[in-house]
Amino acid sequence: MAVLVFDIGGTKTAYAKVNTYDDIEDFNMVETRTIYNNVEDFLVNIINKFLLKNSDIEGVAIGIPGTVDYIDNKIISCPNVSVLDGLNLSKLIGEKVGIPLIVSRDVNFSILAEHIKGSAKDVMNALGIFVGTGLGASILINGKIFLGSHGVAAELGHIYYPKGENKVCQCGNIDCVELYASGKSLKEKSILFRNKFNKKISEKDYFIYKDPEWQKEIYSFIEALSFSISTFVNLIDPEVVVIGGGVSKANGFPWEVIINKTKEKLRKPLPYRKVSFREAKMDYKESLIGGYSFFHQILKNQ
Amino acid sequence: MAVLVFDIGGTKTAYAKVNTYDDIEDFNMVETRTIYNNVEDFLVNIINKFLLKNSDIEGVAIGIPGTVDYIDNKIISCPNVSVLDGLNLSKLIGEKVGIPLIVSRDVNFSILAEHIKGSAKDVMNALGIFVGTGLGASILINGKIFLGSHGVAAELGHIYYPKGENKVCQCGNIDCVELYASGKSLKEKSILFRNKFNKKISEKDYFIYKDPEWQKEIYSFIEALSFSISTFVNLIDPEVVVIGGGVSKANGFPWEVIINKTKEKLRKPLPYRKVSFREAKMDYKESLIGGYSFFHQILKNQ
Repeated sequence: MAVLVFDIGGTKTAYAKVNTYDDIEDFNMVETRTIYNNVEDFLVNIINKFLLKNSDIEGVAIGIPGTVDYIDNKIISCPNVSVLDGLNLSKLIGEKVGIPLIVSRDVNFSILAEHIKGSAKDVMNALGIFVGTGLGASILINGKIFLGSHGVAAELGHIYYPKGENKVCQCGNIDCVELYASGKSLKEKSILFRNKFNKKISEKDYFIYKDPEWQKEIYSFIEALSFSISTFVNLIDPEVVVIGGGVSKANGFPWEVIINKTKEKLRKPLPYRKVSFREAKMDYKESLIGGYSFFHQILKNQ
Repeated sequence: MAVLVFDIGGTKTAYAKVNTYDDIEDFNMVETRTIYNNVEDFLVNIINKFLLKNSDIEGVAIGIPGTVDYIDNKIISCPNVSVLDGLNLSKLIGEKVGIPLIVSRDVNFSILAEHIKGSAKDVMNALGIFVGTGLGASILINGKIFLGSHGVAAELGHIYYPKGENKVCQCGNIDCVELYASGKSLKEKSILFRNKFNKKISEKDYFIYKDPEWQKEIYSFIEALSFSISTFVNLIDPEVVVIGGGVSKANGFPWEVIINKTKEKLRKPLPYRKVSFREAKMDYKESLIGGYSFFHQILKNQ
């Protein structure tokens, strides 16, 4: 049975009907800003349109960049698409359209897609680390998403970074590591750098701009990111770490330095000796397969 | 069927025949230093003595304060009982005595015992954090120990502490959090303090000695410990955190400050709102029940 899968991101929203792991139908993508003020109507309209054309849609899976109370699918924190904050989409929309609707972190869909056909295809235990606007993460154990007791496991972006500068995070806490290891941290650094040195660095040049003062900023980004990845690996002991997200796709992303810095901090001899690091492969479209898989995981557990 | 359970600690070694969760027979405890140079002989002798008297012993479970490669039960790092480093007790002893022998971290036994009859009795998902000589930790998911892909999950003592002072850990890494949040860190602090101020603080007074300079040291211990606990909780999202170990039993252990400092750093609203913190209840003897439970968990999975 097919699942209609949405991925509502900070910038883009993708959706498609997913029939099997190899059959994605009617893929579409819109700018999230165009649906920002009417996200509920947008979802109801698209779902109804699909249901009218397809009798085989069993349910809806929605990925969002935030935390979800998985008992009732209520979105409890979604800083980068704040219009979703506090919404219970299962109630608001699921009941209107008459089929089950589940909501989860987008990165849970991403790691499942990597497991099904991407970089974690050959393993059952993996961590996903996605450096985008924020720092998202997910845990795959025995081929399934590990949700934690309240659905909020893998809050990697919001672990405390003791080397921080007393910055306030959008979540309300101080010095979450996301403030130092994410796309938004790089953007903030580039603005401060421009104001101080009158040199403009575009997003695509973050990692190739050779100015020594700027390289110090990149170094501190790498320090924070390798701290977060090594901590995650030392606590979960996965087979594979998949690293993805928009920032990881930038020119000259310093893969080697990040992995070496991370390995320095891994417990020896294990997990140090056996864990491997890989680049995420799935694009916007393929990632929707993860939503299809997640929907089936949740239904089976019910 | 009964299991003969050993807990080899840095200071004491306890053992008993465990028949059921409520039936512990022939409990004994020796100073670890007395068996340090003949640990293999000691174990073989005790096991044979028990086997001679009891035909119902199904296997042996040994808890150690270190990491174990769980594929072949080889001890791969045991800084606080270094004579065990590199030993494959299953081969060395299991084959001699003719019954299955498993080795695991001692803290895995501890959290299972807490789950069976202690502070985590009512929950299936818990973290154990044991502040002793080192900083040990364990993860309970669905009532079972989560081992990770290579048996070394929950290496909380060896996550990197970015606020550290470039100290070298016995594991070889720099600034493991255990160097700042453990009994040995307090001991080191007290020696430096005595050398500097000529004031001697005994172990039992660490938390009640009111000197303001010393209180700064205690504050930095609390900072490091709350960093490690909050990180663990943000990544695993447990129902309950059980805190135990020798240091937690010292006079005036600052429970309230530690829990408040930890909560400051938890992701809001979840897991912050729902996780609870409890004091470990099990003593040396009762903890052996965890080894009995672990042995059965491992056998079932095989």
